[in-house]
Amino acid sequence: MRHIQPNDLTNQDRFYKVAFFNTLSGIRTPFMVGTKGAVANIGLFNSIVHLGANPPLLGMVFRPATVPRHTLENILENGWYTLNSVTESLIEKAHQTSAKYEREASEFEAVGWKPHYEEDIPAPFVAESPLRMALQFVEKHHISANDTIFLVGEVKHIWIDEQAIDESGEILHDVLGTTLVSGLDAYYSRKKIGNQPYARP
Amino acid sequence: MRHIQPNDLTNQDRFYKVAFFNTLSGIRTPFMVGTKGAVANIGLFNSIVHLGANPPLLGMVFRPATVPRHTLENILENGWYTLNSVTESLIEKAHQTSAKYEREASEFEAVGWKPHYEEDIPAPFVAESPLRMALQFVEKHHISANDTIFLVGEVKHIWIDEQAIDESGEILHDVLGTTLVSGLDAYYSRKKIGNQPYARP
Repeated sequence: MRHIQPNDLTNQDRFYKVAFFNTLSGIRTPFMVGTKGAVANIGLFNSIVHLGANPPLLGMVFRPATVPRHTLENILENGWYTLNSVTESLIEKAHQTSAKYEREASEFEAVGWKPHYEEDIPAPFVAESPLRMALQFVEKHHISANDTIFLVGEVKHIWIDEQAIDESGEILHDVLGTTLVSGLDAYYSRKKIGNQPYARP
Repeated sequence: MRHIQPNDLTNQDRFYKVAFFNTLSGIRTPFMVGTKGAVANIGLFNSIVHLGANPPLLGMVFRPATVPRHTLENILENGWYTLNSVTESLIEKAHQTSAKYEREASEFEAVGWKPHYEEDIPAPFVAESPLRMALQFVEKHHISANDTIFLVGEVKHIWIDEQAIDESGEILHDVLGTTLVSGLDAYYSRKKIGNQPYARP
C-alpha cells in the first residue's frame, strides 16, 4: 500500500491532481441537467446524491469558480431543471455537452438533439434518455471551504422505461443501460451482482 | 415511457417508495466510514461526493431522523473519520455493518475484523480495504427541507494499492475491484469502457 498525503502531489501537474482527487471518491452516475435561459442548456453533472424519499429530494454540487454557471443561474432564475440519464450509446454526445459553450450557444443544437418539453415545465428534456426527471429548486448551501454550492431540489415528475422498475420498486439500471463515470472522463458500464438482505445485528 | 408523479405512489407501501426513490438517482460507490467513540464504529454510506481537489474535500449526507447517529456524533466529537472502499469480496461483511447496532457494540467485532489504526489518527480503518482515507471534519450544513445533514471533510491521508494509480493520476477502480451500490441493497460490479477526450465547443 502506498501512503499519500495531499502535499506529496505538489510536484505533479494540475491535471494529475485533478484526476487523482476526482477519481478517489469512486464511481458515480452522470446526469445531463437541462435548464432554460436564453437558450435550452445542458450541463453534465456527476454529483447527484439522494437526500430522502419523502419528499423525494436530490442534492447536487456546483463549482462556481471554475466552470460556467449557466445551469445554476438558470435554475435560480426559473426554479426548474431536468435530470436525464446517460446510456452507453449516449456517452459521446453527453460528454460533448461538458464543453464550455458560450451562454448563447445551446448544447442541444451543438450535439444535434431537439429539446423536448413537457407541459408546464420550463426546462428542456433529452428525449433520447430512458430516465428523465423534472425537479424544482428547494434550497442552496454555500460550502465555505472552497466556494462550491450544494443545491437541493424536489423531484416532481419522472418519465421512465416501464420495464426498468421491478415489483419491489427498485429501478433496474442494467435494463436502462445506465452508464457510470469516475472523475471527469473515465466511463464505466455496470452489471448487477444481486440484492443483499436487510442487515440485522 | 411511464409518467410518474410522487403522489402516484401513495398507495404503494413504504418499502416500495424507499426502493424507488433511492435507486432513482443511480449507482454510487459505497464506503465504510470508520469512527471512534466508546468503541470502534463502522457505518456504511453511499452518499460520498467530490467537492474539490485543492484542498481535497469530500461531502456526505447524514439522515439524522431515521438512522442511529453514532458516526456523525463521533466525527463531531473528535474531528476525524476514515473512508474505506468496498471490494466484491467484502460486500457481505460491509453490508452487515449497515445493521442498527447499539452504541456500545462495535461493527468491527460483529463482522470479525480488527480495527486498524495509523499514528495520530483517532479513527479506525478497515485493513481489508485496498483504498483507505483519513479525513478531518471541515463544516456541516443543515438541509431544512428534510432535516438531513451535509457534512464536508478534508482528505488528509490516503493508503492505496500502488498499482491502482495510472500515470495520469486516475485511480483505476477495475484494479481495486471497487463495488457499487444502488439504493440500500442492490450491489453492482463495474467495468471501464474508456476515457473520453477533453470536450471543446
